Amino acid sequence: MDALEAWFASRREAIVEELKAFVRIPSVSTDAAYKAGVAEAADFVAGKLVDAGLADARVRPTRGHPVVTASWRGAPGKPTVLIYGHYDVQPPDPMDAWRTMPFEPETRDGRLYARGASDDKGPMLIPIKVAEAFLACDGGLPVNLVFLFEGEEEVSSANLEAFVAENRDYLAADFVLSADGAQWRADLPSVITGSRGICALEVTVRGAAKDLHSGRHGGAVANPIQALARILASLHDESGRVAVPGFYDAVVDLPQHELDDIANVHWSEADYLRSIGAPAGAGEAGYSLLQRNWVRPTLEFNGISGGYAGPGKKTVIPAFAQAKITCRLAPDQEPNVVAAQVARFVETRGVPGVTIEVKIESGGALPYALPLDHIGLALAEAVLAEITGVAPIRVRMGATIPIGGIFKRVLGLETVFFSFATSDEDYHAPNEFFRLSSLDLGLKAWAIYLQRLAASCGTLHQL
Amino acid sequence: MDALEAWFASRREAIVEELKAFVRIPSVSTDAAYKAGVAEAADFVAGKLVDAGLADARVRPTRGHPVVTASWRGAPGKPTVLIYGHYDVQPPDPMDAWRTMPFEPETRDGRLYARGASDDKGPMLIPIKVAEAFLACDGGLPVNLVFLFEGEEEVSSANLEAFVAENRDYLAADFVLSADGAQWRADLPSVITGSRGICALEVTVRGAAKDLHSGRHGGAVANPIQALARILASLHDESGRVAVPGFYDAVVDLPQHELDDIANVHWSEADYLRSIGAPAGAGEAGYSLLQRNWVRPTLEFNGISGGYAGPGKKTVIPAFAQAKITCRLAPDQEPNVVAAQVARFVETRGVPGVTIEVKIESGGALPYALPLDHIGLALAEAVLAEITGVAPIRVRMGATIPIGGIFKRVLGLETVFFSFATSDEDYHAPNEFFRLSSLDLGLKAWAIYLQRLAASCGTLHQL
Repeated sequence: MDALEAWFASRREAIVEELKAFVRIPSVSTDAAYKAGVAEAADFVAGKLVDAGLADARVRPTRGHPVVTASWRGAPGKPTVLIYGHYDVQPPDPMDAWRTMPFEPETRDGRLYARGASDDKGPMLIPIKVAEAFLACDGGLPVNLVFLFEGEEEVSSANLEAFVAENRDYLAADFVLSADGAQWRADLPSVITGSRGICALEVTVRGAAKDLHSGRHGGAVANPIQALARILASLHDESGRVAVPGFYDAVVDLPQHELDDIANVHWSEADYLRSIGAPAGAGEAGYSLLQRNWVRPTLEFNGISGGYAGPGKKTVIPAFAQAKITCRLAPDQEPNVVAAQVARFVETRGVPGVTIEVKIESGGALPYALPLDHIGLALAEAVLAEITGVAPIRVRMGATIPIGGIFKRVLGLETVFFSFATSDEDYHAPNEFFRLSSLDLGLKAWAIYLQRLAASCGTLHQL
Repeated sequence: MDALEAWFASRREAIVEELKAFVRIPSVSTDAAYKAGVAEAADFVAGKLVDAGLADARVRPTRGHPVVTASWRGAPGKPTVLIYGHYDVQPPDPMDAWRTMPFEPETRDGRLYARGASDDKGPMLIPIKVAEAFLACDGGLPVNLVFLFEGEEEVSSANLEAFVAENRDYLAADFVLSADGAQWRADLPSVITGSRGICALEVTVRGAAKDLHSGRHGGAVANPIQALARILASLHDESGRVAVPGFYDAVVDLPQHELDDIANVHWSEADYLRSIGAPAGAGEAGYSLLQRNWVRPTLEFNGISGGYAGPGKKTVIPAFAQAKITCRLAPDQEPNVVAAQVARFVETRGVPGVTIEVKIESGGALPYALPLDHIGLALAEAVLAEITGVAPIRVRMGATIPIGGIFKRVLGLETVFFSFATSDEDYHAPNEFFRLSSLDLGLKAWAIYLQRLAASCGTLHQL
């Protein structure tokens, strides 16, 4: 380890410069205008893998942006880890809210400011440099590694599942170690043990063929806003539970000790509500605010529109009204099943004078829960405790990380999240930054993790 | 009458040219860019009144657009009629949907196409020309007349009530005869016996201080769209009645024979629904479609907005959601009272995690119902039957005509609607037109009406 630490120390500035070069590439996957930037970033990543000593590194096409892979299988009898990260980034808008330009990195107070610095270029560069260090210092890696870096994480990993299914043999491993996924708080180490899935629908209620004068026609015909409001209001009961039949059928009830663990997290509901400017909490009765956000499924309305929304009044009965819905899914809900349940419930509300259309959007994703006795998790917790001096807490992501479900379903592999981003680093907002102290911490942590894993391979094979 | 008819016949072309000159003036009251056009139209009207022989015609300022008045009180012992019309017009937009320019009148197939031709410049020119004809042929009028033409009908007659209140003496009369208000159908003469009032509100539901990520926060905080949907859904019961306490308290139940009259109107619900492209009727149980539209109050949602309404999905919990509401009021509901009832009901819905704001919009208007035994109505029906050969039907306006309520409240006068516009003349749409046959019919009808009124003045004084 001393040799590795010396290697990291001697190359600290060079690694930061590599990260700066990486974040200068505008690899915005959501916007076709940045297509060349995404391709350039893929080439950059493949080049870094080759430089690290992973000669088979390749940029591999998908139906969308490419995947970059590399592998090293020179440790027979040792575990194989599939390392995941993504080189695409969120759009930089709104541009004028950035203190310095999003693709011109600047270091201030030990933080590197740039789009993608925290999500996920800084964190994903760490395992590449760790592999390089091992190969340089030891001539080999403690365990077998396969690298998979995608360019579509910010667009719901749209083509990842197909790629993984077509490359099962190349990707064969014991578990996935993800450089994506963030530390929950800056002041407390944490491990992510699950994330919610998602499915999305759009409901359109139509009345007359065109907008009608509310005086000349009002009272005689249905009002699509009224019909839509009735439908939406019927989707939750008075206790805040989703009222769609079957919605909770597949939800795995957590054992009481896991619920207790969440209830016991040192975290202030009042501070949280103050931080987001909400007058009070809300949601499903019988659960704490954090339990509702981490482990309970939801049905949320993301948008509603219909009729006149400008200043003053316009006496119109609109021809249609529309609502956008997403459900966050708890293990083991299936996005397609839940979307169909919600669609059927909405379609059969039976409101006089209107027609109801439901469109199920693509891009659903499975929820994910890592078994809490997974050795990869135990290792992550042990390494974090060792290098930070604080025992990490287990957190769930209320948000959706599609990869957990994809790797589980296609490859049968669990995913351990081991990212050194922190959730306060504004990674979907202006002035994204990455703490350079997290870079140091991450390099050390990944190196120790891979060494410990090699040492515990007998245990691993019991999984 | 023969002399008058000869006078009209000899001046037919000149009157059409006067109407063309009138509609060339772009007197759009809703748009400040047309302020000069509105002022020019007021001067034009005053000029026509002077030309007719009404020497005291004057343009009189209000806090908004001016009112034009004139009077002739040379028939002592005879009734006095307050004649109402308006010289302002709707905006011409969308301009590109006009076959010929809105302020360049063109006659096609016996119809004069121009903005304002039907609403209300053609109909309001009629009583001016009739007065001119009487004064020219007879040297006097059969009854006393006061003319009041406003320039703000298309902006809810915002300053009319104040003007009327300040000019009670000048406007003193036995009843109002309105050149505004339209024939219900082109194939059947009709008289309007009432109109619904209106009040308007805007409801805003606020949750957190900014939009939140629906994954990172969903389940823990209230969704303002969900809260708004629950509130809106609570405003009607299952039978389509408004569920706001007290809403129907002031509504005068029509006697059964009046409800029967409406039920017996020869009118096809199926044809109507087909014409507006609605899959079915809807509304308050226990009433026909026409009864619901003509004489029952409503609570309509005119617009709703909140969150993301663009293509695809955006996983956001919006900071707020908003709905616009108008109520159409039946006699004797008061707009301020109803608006306050609705506001109070909405404000006290008590949804966890949100705040509810209700703004009562200005511009409310009273409903109006003309007593069905009014001699002015009987005269209108008799004259229409005589000149068309068909007995007119009595209709109510689902829409709002503020003047009925204003004249009743301020002057204690009933309003008889005697307009020769027809509701199919696209008066709030592109390609507005006025049937020139209606001009001929109207000149004759108004002349006969005033003569008959003079003859029946003994009866009138029994009112």
